[in-house]
Amino acid sequence: MTGPTTTGRVRTTGTVRVVGVGLLGASAGLGLRALGVDVALADPSPSALALAVDLGAGRRAADGDRPALVVVATPPDVTADVVAAELTAHPDAAVTDVASVKHGVRDALVASGALLARYVGGHPMAGRERSGAVAARGDLFVGRPWVVAPDGAEESAVGAVADLVLDLGALPVVMGGRAHDDAVALVSHLPQLAATLVAARLRDAPASAVDLAGPGLRDVTRIAASDPALWVQILAANAGPVAALLRAVRDDLDGLLGALEALDGDPVAPGARAALARAVAAGNDGVARVPGKHGAPPTTYALVTVVVPDRPGELGRLLAEMGEIGVNLEDLHLEHSPGQPVGLAELSVLPSAREHLATSLEARGWAVH
Amino acid sequence: MTGPTTTGRVRTTGTVRVVGVGLLGASAGLGLRALGVDVALADPSPSALALAVDLGAGRRAADGDRPALVVVATPPDVTADVVAAELTAHPDAAVTDVASVKHGVRDALVASGALLARYVGGHPMAGRERSGAVAARGDLFVGRPWVVAPDGAEESAVGAVADLVLDLGALPVVMGGRAHDDAVALVSHLPQLAATLVAARLRDAPASAVDLAGPGLRDVTRIAASDPALWVQILAANAGPVAALLRAVRDDLDGLLGALEALDGDPVAPGARAALARAVAAGNDGVARVPGKHGAPPTTYALVTVVVPDRPGELGRLLAEMGEIGVNLEDLHLEHSPGQPVGLAELSVLPSAREHLATSLEARGWAVH
Repeated sequence: MTGPTTTGRVRTTGTVRVVGVGLLGASAGLGLRALGVDVALADPSPSALALAVDLGAGRRAADGDRPALVVVATPPDVTADVVAAELTAHPDAAVTDVASVKHGVRDALVASGALLARYVGGHPMAGRERSGAVAARGDLFVGRPWVVAPDGAEESAVGAVADLVLDLGALPVVMGGRAHDDAVALVSHLPQLAATLVAARLRDAPASAVDLAGPGLRDVTRIAASDPALWVQILAANAGPVAALLRAVRDDLDGLLGALEALDGDPVAPGARAALARAVAAGNDGVARVPGKHGAPPTTYALVTVVVPDRPGELGRLLAEMGEIGVNLEDLHLEHSPGQPVGLAELSVLPSAREHLATSLEARGWAVH
Repeated sequence: MTGPTTTGRVRTTGTVRVVGVGLLGASAGLGLRALGVDVALADPSPSALALAVDLGAGRRAADGDRPALVVVATPPDVTADVVAAELTAHPDAAVTDVASVKHGVRDALVASGALLARYVGGHPMAGRERSGAVAARGDLFVGRPWVVAPDGAEESAVGAVADLVLDLGALPVVMGGRAHDDAVALVSHLPQLAATLVAARLRDAPASAVDLAGPGLRDVTRIAASDPALWVQILAANAGPVAALLRAVRDDLDGLLGALEALDGDPVAPGARAALARAVAAGNDGVARVPGKHGAPPTTYALVTVVVPDRPGELGRLLAEMGEIGVNLEDLHLEHSPGQPVGLAELSVLPSAREHLATSLEARGWAVH
């Protein structure tokens, strides 16, 4: 098990109390323990708590604890209540949470009359496809954005949460809770629903149709395999921003539909082809804004496609030879060939390296496209 | 440059005439030439023709040619006219095409009074992201489905086209043209539009929102980068089937929107959460039908996530060690960590191999999730 880097100083001081030892809470505990921080764990489930302690995520919380920071990592529907209770129980502590939608937690706290100066909302963008302390890792948050939403909290509380985020190897992104909720509606909740809507059309389709699926369909629908119970909680908590986006998508969809229906009746329907072209071009513009790796501005990489025999080690041999050639891999996409014992590896590299890589791989006997 | 396998007998007999030497036509020529088949090339562009000949895709067509098979690989908007002309010019030849929508070609041929007994529609599911003879490869079609749509053609013509498909290493999938068009509307054209609609929402979003994008958004929107001019041709040619699917998606979207709007006003709105759960579950069912590799029934693979330093050769070393451990890679997904010099490699393996792989990689010093 690997924790965040132990080089450099540890920023977090004092005891960190973690309430809720599922994937996120236990991972935070493991990461902090690897840095030597005192971690006090609490959970309403005695067996979950015992497991987290056994895994090394921290010690059991004790009555005399005076935490400097409380991390509430409970299921989202009880987050606000637990945050309010922790603010009361630990009057000197900063309190943060990890719920994936922020405005509902704050609204509930305001409605309950809680004092919000020491509450700082948080959302680590990590770990969504596993659950429970057994899946926890001290390095779960390494390199991931972790939204910190001060929304007026005291500077000392914000600083304590930012230190936690940095100690866990994550990248603090400070923004307001409402802005965060609009952002995740766009980059997370809308894509989820789009994948769901496309995948739902496959349910009753003939097998002969589904069997023609290629990498495009696979990519678009991959996240449609997500857990319905979890997504109902997320979508319900962010219903307003998601609905606003869905209305905009429906307007665009109606525009596409109108153009297609016009073309279905008349292949030269005036304006219909221009409407389709504008829609596809708008998608071009949007996808160009999706960041590449390292948070850098999006780069258009050059593709080198190589035929790879489907045996253990062949892809490794290809990429090891890329290393020998001295070209760094920016992204990799595997396409399997149905019914054939070969795959196609699409290697994304800097455009300046493309020719050298292709020539060198061909010289080594690889079939390069 | 690699062609399809040269072991085993060559099925195609006589001369194959290829009309249109773009990516698909030139690739077919290269593949057939590698098998020793006589390939006669024709193209209205003298420079394109000269390039294809230089690349080894075949010889220039001559007046005395008596082709056994004609492959029409022109842009889709002239395919029907060229097929009709070839049927007339070569009264003993079977004629096929590669247009990605089939019913329009056939309807135009019927309207022109062409004799259709020797025409067999075709659609190789390959090569969509490159163009021109310079991008051609003899192995472009290896392992890919190639739809063959006889729609009442003579057995000998269907056999000649199926032989071509097999000789090029592709997998013939026989289905009617209308069924094909419905299928590609579902597995290709609808995902394209869904990606476009989601990506278009990113165009005017704040950078702080787009910067939170993770692998889910990247996968859903990847194909939104496609060429508008090409997609207008494809969508216009298949407007009816695509419109029918879009109407169904809009109905589902309206259902989601109704539930979200109800929850936005009332977090316990009756029935709204159940409606969301049913929608997500329908997506679960649909995505489970997307075939995995090798045309096998979809398998749920186990994931092993490994931290990979972002230096040339590191991913290669990882996969080479996987080979030494003896575990085959079923799929691979790279996640880059914004702002950090590491990436996460998600290795998909058979569930039975997961534990062995994770333990062995950890023993070799890899940080495994």
